[in-house]
Amino acid sequence: MDSYSIIAVVSIITAGLTIAIGSIGPAFGESRAVAQALTAIAQQPDASSTITRTLFVGLAMIESVAIYCFVVSMILIFANPFWEYAKTAAGN
Amino acid sequence: MDSYSIIAVVSIITAGLTIAIGSIGPAFGESRAVAQALTAIAQQPDASSTITRTLFVGLAMIESVAIYCFVVSMILIFANPFWEYAKTAAGN
Amino acid sequence: MDSYSIIAVVSIITAGLTIAIGSIGPAFGESRAVAQALTAIAQQPDASSTITRTLFVGLAMIESVAIYCFVVSMILIFANPFWEYAKTAAGN
Amino acid sequence: MDSYSIIAVVSIITAGLTIAIGSIGPAFGESRAVAQALTAIAQQPDASSTITRTLFVGLAMIESVAIYCFVVSMILIFANPFWEYAKTAAGN
Amino acid sequence: MDSYSIIAVVSIITAGLTIAIGSIGPAFGESRAVAQALTAIAQQPDASSTITRTLFVGLAMIESVAIYCFVVSMILIFANPFWEYAKTAAGN
Amino acid sequence: MDSYSIIAVVSIITAGLTIAIGSIGPAFGESRAVAQALTAIAQQPDASSTITRTLFVGLAMIESVAIYCFVVSMILIFANPFWEYAKTAAGN
Amino acid sequence: MDSYSIIAVVSIITAGLTIAIGSIGPAFGESRAVAQALTAIAQQPDASSTITRTLFVGLAMIESVAIYCFVVSMILIFANPFWEYAKTAAGN
Amino acid sequence: MDSYSIIAVVSIITAGLTIAIGSIGPAFGESRAVAQALTAIAQQPDASSTITRTLFVGLAMIESVAIYCFVVSMILIFANPFWEYAKTAAGN
Amino acid sequence: MDSYSIIAVVSIITAGLTIAIGSIGPAFGESRAVAQALTAIAQQPDASSTITRTLFVGLAMIESVAIYCFVVSMILIFANPFWEYAKTAAGN
Amino acid sequence: MDSYSIIAVVSIITAGLTIAIGSIGPAFGESRAVAQALTAIAQQPDASSTITRTLFVGLAMIESVAIYCFVVSMILIFANPFWEYAKTAAGN
Amino acid sequence: MDSYSIIAVVSIITAGLTIAIGSIGPAFGESRAVAQALTAIAQQPDASSTITRTLFVGLAMIESVAIYCFVVSMILIFANPFWEYAKTAAGN
Amino acid sequence: MDSYSIIAVVSIITAGLTIAIGSIGPAFGESRAVAQALTAIAQQPDASSTITRTLFVGLAMIESVAIYCFVVSMILIFANPFWEYAKTAAGN
Amino acid sequence: MDSYSIIAVVSIITAGLTIAIGSIGPAFGESRAVAQALTAIAQQPDASSTITRTLFVGLAMIESVAIYCFVVSMILIFANPFWEYAKTAAGN
Amino acid sequence: MDSYSIIAVVSIITAGLTIAIGSIGPAFGESRAVAQALTAIAQQPDASSTITRTLFVGLAMIESVAIYCFVVSMILIFANPFWEYAKTAAGN
Repeated sequence: MDSYSIIAVVSIITAGLTIAIGSIGPAFGESRAVAQALTAIAQQPDASSTITRTLFVGLAMIESVAIYCFVVSMILIFANPFWEYAKTAAGN
Repeated sequence: MDSYSIIAVVSIITAGLTIAIGSIGPAFGESRAVAQALTAIAQQPDASSTITRTLFVGLAMIESVAIYCFVVSMILIFANPFWEYAKTAAGN
Repeated sequence: MDSYSIIAVVSIITAGLTIAIGSIGPAFGESRAVAQALTAIAQQPDASSTITRTLFVGLAMIESVAIYCFVVSMILIFANPFWEYAKTAAGN
Repeated sequence: MDSYSIIAVVSIITAGLTIAIGSIGPAFGESRAVAQALTAIAQQPDASSTITRTLFVGLAMIESVAIYCFVVSMILIFANPFWEYAKTAAGN
Repeated sequence: MDSYSIIAVVSIITAGLTIAIGSIGPAFGESRAVAQALTAIAQQPDASSTITRTLFVGLAMIESVAIYCFVVSMILIFANPFWEYAKTAAGN
Repeated sequence: MDSYSIIAVVSIITAGLTIAIGSIGPAFGESRAVAQALTAIAQQPDASSTITRTLFVGLAMIESVAIYCFVVSMILIFANPFWEYAKTAAGN
Repeated sequence: MDSYSIIAVVSIITAGLTIAIGSIGPAFGESRAVAQALTAIAQQPDASSTITRTLFVGLAMIESVAIYCFVVSMILIFANPFWEYAKTAAGN
Repeated sequence: MDSYSIIAVVSIITAGLTIAIGSIGPAFGESRAVAQALTAIAQQPDASSTITRTLFVGLAMIESVAIYCFVVSMILIFANPFWEYAKTAAGN
Repeated sequence: MDSYSIIAVVSIITAGLTIAIGSIGPAFGESRAVAQALTAIAQQPDASSTITRTLFVGLAMIESVAIYCFVVSMILIFANPFWEYAKTAAGN
Repeated sequence: MDSYSIIAVVSIITAGLTIAIGSIGPAFGESRAVAQALTAIAQQPDASSTITRTLFVGLAMIESVAIYCFVVSMILIFANPFWEYAKTAAGN
Repeated sequence: MDSYSIIAVVSIITAGLTIAIGSIGPAFGESRAVAQALTAIAQQPDASSTITRTLFVGLAMIESVAIYCFVVSMILIFANPFWEYAKTAAGN
Repeated sequence: MDSYSIIAVVSIITAGLTIAIGSIGPAFGESRAVAQALTAIAQQPDASSTITRTLFVGLAMIESVAIYCFVVSMILIFANPFWEYAKTAAGN
Repeated sequence: MDSYSIIAVVSIITAGLTIAIGSIGPAFGESRAVAQALTAIAQQPDASSTITRTLFVGLAMIESVAIYCFVVSMILIFANPFWEYAKTAAGN
Repeated sequence: MDSYSIIAVVSIITAGLTIAIGSIGPAFGESRAVAQALTAIAQQPDASSTITRTLFVGLAMIESVAIYCFVVSMILIFANPFWEYAKTAAGN
C-alpha cells in the first residue's frame, strides 16, 4: 500500500472519530445547561430574560468546542496538508 | 488488497461508527432537555410558552451536533474526496 | 480474499454495529422523556395536553437520531456505492 | 478460507451481536417507562387512563428501536444480499 | 481448518454470547419494573389491580426483547442456514 | 489442531462465559425485586399477600432469563449438534 | 501442543473464570437483599417473621444462580465430556 | 513448551485470578450487609438480636460464594486432575 | 512506508484525537458551571451581576484548557517541526 | 525460554496481581463498615458496645477474603507445587 | 524506519495525548469549583469577596496541573532532548 | 533474551503494578473512614474518644491490606526466590 | 532500532503519560476540597480563617502528589540515568 | 536488543506508571478527607481542634500509600537491583 493511500485511510478514520467522540461532550453539556435553564425559569419566571441571556452565552461557548472538532474534521477531509503533499510527492 | 478497496473499507466502517457513536450524545441530551421541560411545565404551567421556546432553541443546538455527525457520515459514503481520487488513480 | 468480499464483510459488520450501538441512546432517551412525562401528568393532570404535545415533539427529535442510524445501516446493506463499484470492478 | 465462508462467519457474529447489544437499550428503557408509569398511577389513580395511553405510545416507540435491531439481525441471517451474491459467485 | 468448522465455531460463540449479553438488559429491566410495582402497591393498595395489569403488559414487552435474543441463539444452534449450506457444500 | 478439538474448546469457553455473564443480570435483578418487596412489606404489612404474589411472578420471569442462559450452556456441553457432527465427520 | 492439552487448558481457565465472574452478581445481590431486610426489620419489628421468610426465598433464588455457575465449573473440571472424549481419542 | 508446563502455567494464572476477582463481590457484599446492620442496630437497639441473627445468616450465604472461589482456586493448585493426567502422560 | 508518511499519519491521528478527547472535559465543565449559574440566578436574582462575573472568569479558565488542546492540534497539522524536518530530510 | 522460567514468570505476575486486585474489595468493604459504625456510634452512643462487637465480626469476615488472596499469593511465591515439580524435572 | 523517525512519531503522539488526557481533570475540577462558588455566592452574598478570593487561589492550583501537562507537551514538541540527540546522531 | 532477564523484567513490572493498583483501595478506604469519623465527631463531640478508637482500629485493618501489597512488592524486588534461583542456574 | 532509541522512545511516552494520568487525581481532588471550602465559608463565614488554613494544608498535600508525578516526568526527560548509561554504552 | 536495555525500558515504564496510577487514590482520598473536615468545622467550630488532629492523622496514613508508590518508583529508577546486576553481567 503506497503512502497516499495510508494517509487517506487515516484521514478518513480520524475525521469520523473526531466528530463522533467530539459530539458527546457538547451534546451532554448543552442539554445540561438547557435543562437547568428550564428549571430556573420554572422557579423564577421573573428572571427569565437574565437566565436566557446567560444560557445563550453558555451554549455559545459549549458549541464552540463542537465547532473545533468539526473544523478539524473538515480540515482533515477537504484541506489536509499532508494529503496535498503526498499527492504532489506521488507525482499526480 | 489494492488501495481503493482499503479506502472503501475504512470509509464504510468510519461512516457507520461516526453516526452510531455520534447518536449517543444527542439522544441522551435531547431526552434530558425534554424531560426537564416537562417537569418545568408541570411545575409552572403559566410559563409554558417561555419554556417551550427555550426548549426548542436548545434542541436545535443539540440536534446540530447530531447533524454534524450525519453530514460527515454521508460525505464519507457519497462524496468522499479520497475515494474519488483513488478511483481516478486506479484508472477507472 | 478478494476485494469485494472484504467490502461485503465490513459492510455487514458495520451495518449491524451501527444500528446496535445507535439503538442505545435513543432507547434510553425516549424512555427518559416518557418517564418524565408520566410523572408530569401525575403531578399536573390539567396540563396533560401541553405535556403530551411537548413529549411528542421531543420523541420525534430523539427518534430522528435512531432513524439516521437505521438509514446508514440500510444504505450499507442495500445501496452501498462501494459494493456496487467493487462488483463492477470484479466484472460481475 | 474461501469468500462465502467469511461472509457467513461475519453474518453470524454480527446478527448475534446486533440483537444482543441492541436489546440492552430497549429493555432498560421500557422498564424505566413502565416503572415510572406505575409510580404515576399510584400517585394519581384518577389519571390512569391518560397515563396508560401515553405509556403505550412511548413503549411502541422504544420497542421500535429493538425491532430495527431484530430486523437487521434477521436480514443478515435469512436475506443477506452479500451472501446471495457470494453463493452465486461461487457457482453454487 | 475447513469452512464448516469455522462456521460451527462462530455459531457456538455467538449463540452463547447473544443470550448472555442479551440477558442483562431484560433481567435488570424486569426487576426494576417489579420493584416499582411493589412500591406502588405498598403506597396505593386500592389500585393494585390496575398496577398489576400495567406491570404484566410491561413485563411482556421487556421479556419480548429477551425472547428475540433466545430465538436468535436457538436459530444459530439448531436452524443455522449458513451451517446447512456449509454441510451441503462439504458433501456430507 | 483438528476440527473437533477447536469445537470442543470453544464450546467449553462459551458454556462457561454464557452462564457466568448471564448470572450477573438475574442476580442483581432478583435482589432488587426482593429488596423492594421487603421494603414494601415493612411499609404496608397488610398488603403482604399481594406483594408476595407479585414478587413471585416477577422472580419467575427474571429467573427465566437465567434459565435461558443455563439451558444454552447445558446444550453446548451435553447436546451440542456441531460437536456431534464433528465427531461423526472425524469417523469416531 | 496436542488436542487434549488445549482442552485441559481452556477447561481450567473457563472453570476459574466462570465461578469468579459468576460470584460477583450473587454476592452483591444477596448483600442487597440482606441489607434491605435488616432495614425493614428495624422499621417494622412486628413483621420480622414475614420479612425473614420472604428474604430466605429470595436468597435461595439468588444463590441458585451462583450454584449454576459452580455446577458448570465443577462439570468442566471433574466431568468434562470433551476431555473424556479427547483422552479416549488419544488412546490413553 | 511441553504440555504439562502450559497446564501448570494456566493453572497458576487461573487460580490467582479466580480468588482475586472472586474476592471483590463478597468483600463489597459483606461490608454492605454489615454496614446496614449497624445502621439498623442504631435505629432499633431493641431488635438487635433479630438483626444480628439475620445478619449472620446473610454473611454465611455471601461468604459461601467466596468459599466457592477459594475451593476452585485450591483445587486448581493442589488437586488439579488435568495436571495429574499430564504428569502421568509425560511418564514422570 | 517511508519516514515522512509515518509522521504525517501519526500527526493526523493525534491531531484529531487531541481535540476530540480534549473537548469532553471543557464541554462538560462549562455546562456544569453554566447550569449552576442559572440555578444561582434563580435563587438569588439580586446577586446576578456578581454571579455572571464569576461565571465568565470561570468559563475563561475552563475554555483555556480547550484552547490548549486546539493549539496543539493546529500545531500538529500546520506547524509540525518533525514534519518540516522530515520533508527536508527527504530532500523535498 | 525453558519451562521453569515460564512458570516462574507467571507465578510472579499472578502473585502480584492476585494481592493487588484482591486488595480493592476488602479495602473498600472495611472502610464502608467502619464508616457506618462511626455514624451509628454518633447516632446511638449507648449501643456502642453492640455496634463495636458486630463491626469486629464483620471486619473479620471481610478481612478473611483479603487473607485468602494473600495466602494464594504467598503459596505461589514460596510453596508453588508446579515450580517444585519443574525444578525437579529440570534436574536441578 | 530509522531512529529519529520513531522518536518523532512517539513525540507527536505523546504530546497530543498528554494535553488531551491532561485536560480532562482540570476542566472538570475548575467547573466544580466555579459551580460551587456560584452556589455559595447565591446562599451568602455578603461573603462573596472571601469566596471569590478562595476560588481564585483554588483555580490557580488546579490550572497549575493543566500547565504541567501543557509544559510537558510543548517540551516534547519544541525542546525535546531525545530528538536533538537523535538528529545529531544521524549527522544532520 | 535469556531466562534471568525475563524474570527480572516481570519482577519489575509486577512490583510496580502491585503497589500502584494496591494503593487505590486503601487510599479511598481510609479517606472514607476518616471522612465519616470527622462527620461523627462534628455530630457527637462527646463520643469523640470512642469514635477515634474505633477509627484507628479500622484504619489499621485497612492499612494492613496496603501493607500486604507493599510486602509482596518488596519481596519481588529484594527477596525474589525465582530470581535467586535463576541467577544460580545461570552460574553467576 | 538500537538500544538508546528504544530507551528514548519509552522515556518520552512514559513522561507524557505519567503527568497526564497523574493530573487527573489532583485536579479532581483539589477542586473537591475547594468546592467544599466554599460551601463551608458560605455556611459559617465566621470560621473562614480556620477553614482557609485547613484548606491550604490540604491543597498542599494533594498538590504534593501531582508534584511527585511531575518530578518523575522531568527526571525521565532531563536526568534519566538509563539514558545517560545508554549514551555512554553507545560510545557517544 | 540486549538484556540491560530491556530492563531499562521496563524500569522506566513501570516507574512512571507506578506513581501515575498510585497518585489517583491518595489524591482523591485526601481531598475527600479534607472536604469532610471543612464541612465538619463549619458545622461544629468548637470541635475544630479535635477535627484537625484527626484529619492530620488520616492524611498521614493516606499520604503513606502515595509514599509507598513514590518509593517503589524511585527504587526502580535509582536503586534497581536487577539493573545493577544486568550492568555487571554485561561487563560494564
